[in-house]
Amino acid sequence: MKPVYITRRETFNAAHKLWREDWSDEKNWEVFGKCSNKNWHGHNFTIWVTVKGVPNPDTGFVINLKDLSKIIKDSVIEPLDHRNLNLDVPFLKGVLASTENVVIKIWNEILDPIKDAGGELVKIKLVETENNYVEYYGGKEPI
Amino acid sequence: MKPVYITRRETFNAAHKLWREDWSDEKNWEVFGKCSNKNWHGHNFTIWVTVKGVPNPDTGFVINLKDLSKIIKDSVIEPLDHRNLNLDVPFLKGVLASTENVVIKIWNEILDPIKDAGGELVKIKLVETENNYVEYYGGKEPI
Amino acid sequence: MKPVYITRRETFNAAHKLWREDWSDEKNWEVFGKCSNKNWHGHNFTIWVTVKGVPNPDTGFVINLKDLSKIIKDSVIEPLDHRNLNLDVPFLKGVLASTENVVIKIWNEILDPIKDAGGELVKIKLVETENNYVEYYGGKEPI
Amino acid sequence: MKPVYITRRETFNAAHKLWREDWSDEKNWEVFGKCSNKNWHGHNFTIWVTVKGVPNPDTGFVINLKDLSKIIKDSVIEPLDHRNLNLDVPFLKGVLASTENVVIKIWNEILDPIKDAGGELVKIKLVETENNYVEYYGGKEPI
Amino acid sequence: MKPVYITRRETFNAAHKLWREDWSDEKNWEVFGKCSNKNWHGHNFTIWVTVKGVPNPDTGFVINLKDLSKIIKDSVIEPLDHRNLNLDVPFLKGVLASTENVVIKIWNEILDPIKDAGGELVKIKLVETENNYVEYYGGKEPI
Amino acid sequence: MKPVYITRRETFNAAHKLWREDWSDEKNWEVFGKCSNKNWHGHNFTIWVTVKGVPNPDTGFVINLKDLSKIIKDSVIEPLDHRNLNLDVPFLKGVLASTENVVIKIWNEILDPIKDAGGELVKIKLVETENNYVEYYGGKEPI
Repeated sequence: MKPVYITRRETFNAAHKLWREDWSDEKNWEVFGKCSNKNWHGHNFTIWVTVKGVPNPDTGFVINLKDLSKIIKDSVIEPLDHRNLNLDVPFLKGVLASTENVVIKIWNEILDPIKDAGGELVKIKLVETENNYVEYYGGKEPI
Repeated sequence: MKPVYITRRETFNAAHKLWREDWSDEKNWEVFGKCSNKNWHGHNFTIWVTVKGVPNPDTGFVINLKDLSKIIKDSVIEPLDHRNLNLDVPFLKGVLASTENVVIKIWNEILDPIKDAGGELVKIKLVETENNYVEYYGGKEPI
Repeated sequence: MKPVYITRRETFNAAHKLWREDWSDEKNWEVFGKCSNKNWHGHNFTIWVTVKGVPNPDTGFVINLKDLSKIIKDSVIEPLDHRNLNLDVPFLKGVLASTENVVIKIWNEILDPIKDAGGELVKIKLVETENNYVEYYGGKEPI
Repeated sequence: MKPVYITRRETFNAAHKLWREDWSDEKNWEVFGKCSNKNWHGHNFTIWVTVKGVPNPDTGFVINLKDLSKIIKDSVIEPLDHRNLNLDVPFLKGVLASTENVVIKIWNEILDPIKDAGGELVKIKLVETENNYVEYYGGKEPI
Repeated sequence: MKPVYITRRETFNAAHKLWREDWSDEKNWEVFGKCSNKNWHGHNFTIWVTVKGVPNPDTGFVINLKDLSKIIKDSVIEPLDHRNLNLDVPFLKGVLASTENVVIKIWNEILDPIKDAGGELVKIKLVETENNYVEYYGGKEPI
Repeated sequence: MKPVYITRRETFNAAHKLWREDWSDEKNWEVFGKCSNKNWHGHNFTIWVTVKGVPNPDTGFVINLKDLSKIIKDSVIEPLDHRNLNLDVPFLKGVLASTENVVIKIWNEILDPIKDAGGELVKIKLVETENNYVEYYGGKEPI
């Protein structure tokens, strides 16, 4: 009963800014730099979702990629793609839109749907630019 | 006196939307689709600038990449990076921010500085996502 | 009236082989090498379609990417994706399935639909592996 | 005695289909979708093989990459490249050719040769498309 | 208090060779192959540095990427970029410049500065070519 | 008789420096910057060679990629890979090793072998880093 890990990639393009209303402009600039631009900036985000499981002997699948892709599209891409992460996304309301905070919130959105589809979500990698990304394991600490 | 073409890449992350004030919401949606989201979306843009010239016998250079990079950074990256293309950029004021329109405006910003540095700008490629990009040759039609 | 060139990427995964029935196994191997494997092999193909035009002053578009994407999906991806290029594709019947021959046949499939959508097809780039691709300009010779 | 992990990439291009003879066409389509196309489809597969070890003080190597590359080429690339995974590969006979099943079988082929070369195989990543890949750790569960 | 892992990429271009003075030319060639070329060769190295931590509730950051980037640039890119790894780098003096050995030495250079900035270094990935890379976890064995 | 353009990629890893013996250290630094490091630096170079032709009706090939690959390997990769461009390469002796100068010299090495194989060399693209590359058309000016 040896597990295999399968990963699906999806993408979304969104605007955001790193900005706290309760801080001065100077404080926002000092901490968040150009990411604090008031009129927003944006990224082509890439999300990689990893599911763990023993391949089903009937199908050879840990999880059917059609199902996994549909879950990600319904729960992540639909609400985030071509949106403003600070203004448009119900599950990000009130959240400072750093990639760290966003990846944690996305985890909560897809954990149960993946479980319902028979898979175990173990990792999300969220890539913001070619130079930085975050990874989240639901609180586990593999490293 | 055989010319070589040298290309430099730079990147910028920006917000924008495709939206006309003089159109109804429905018309904006019909034409621009999800790109018309009122609260903006954004991209990691990549710009490739191509300069033509005969290598200088003293340096082996068509143009010094330090100079070319500085021109692109001063004239393009500084005004566009972590900005809103519709709101924050003087040379894009009043311009519908399609990649086609943006690439033409960028051309005008760097044509003369590159000429002053001894080079001939012949092409700009502006990549919006992994699935689409535009190329502009200053009106020339190589294809 | 200065033209801009816009390019859309789509992908398809297909099987094929390079093989002539009227040649001996030895001759097929000599010319086509491992590409002549009788039981097929396959690739993740990437197609880049370039359309030329002056941006529409109302939309900023050379062509609406939604339209261009739909044309490529209907005319190329639907018939080629998860197919056998030698057996399953009506417009490739009887064609030796080299990338050179395939790109020419694809051109014929999308030339008119793109024209009907108001665009001018000027280039198709068909990538077979990370190490080789072909480009076709409809018979024009830009280089 | 602190271990370093070294990874080598190789590629192969192969045809396959997801198909069960004991299922109806409808059932195959329902589960495997377009991957069940009877006449096959194919991919450019990329394989990443990770070996763990303490660098040899004489060479600075965990394992000589020439040796690791030769093992992968002899045991994986030679039997899989430009082949049909369902028909042509002795060690995949009778195996439903999902990436999950294929990565497990590849593990068995290279585990001992890598051990004989003084290394410890700890991970294989098998990439099928830019949108999906599988990882296998020989049954271990690092995540 | 669930940790997130954040990774920053930087690049450097350097020359090196794999060569032992106390070995004959033949022995060097036998073990190191073309990497033993006496007059050096070189690479575009890419380094990925991963820091673990719980996002700061005030900033949403595990570590400010400006700080992380500055640490890597000061401690790694400045001494290694456009240098000879065998001759020019104080912290690599006397080290056989295999990627395995280099990644261990880089770890020692950035461990404390990252700790001083409030982060916990957990992984460095050093990519030498598109076909090989090493990973180091400071001696930990996640796999 | 419509031409198709086929391109083959190969790679080589080499050391070089931009340095003139007849200039002072200061002058070298002023013009060539960190590329003038006396002890060399290096790159993973990528070369893309484009050949033009009408597909052979018997084979579907503009040129057999096995032949094209062999020409590039024999004439370019063998003399440049894991070498010092300033010291080790007969056809670069006395040449200031800028990418512009190197691409012109490579052109001369492969023009005739490709012609002998029935192809017409029309373009070489030489990529030095992810941020810069040069293109050469043998003196033609397509743009």
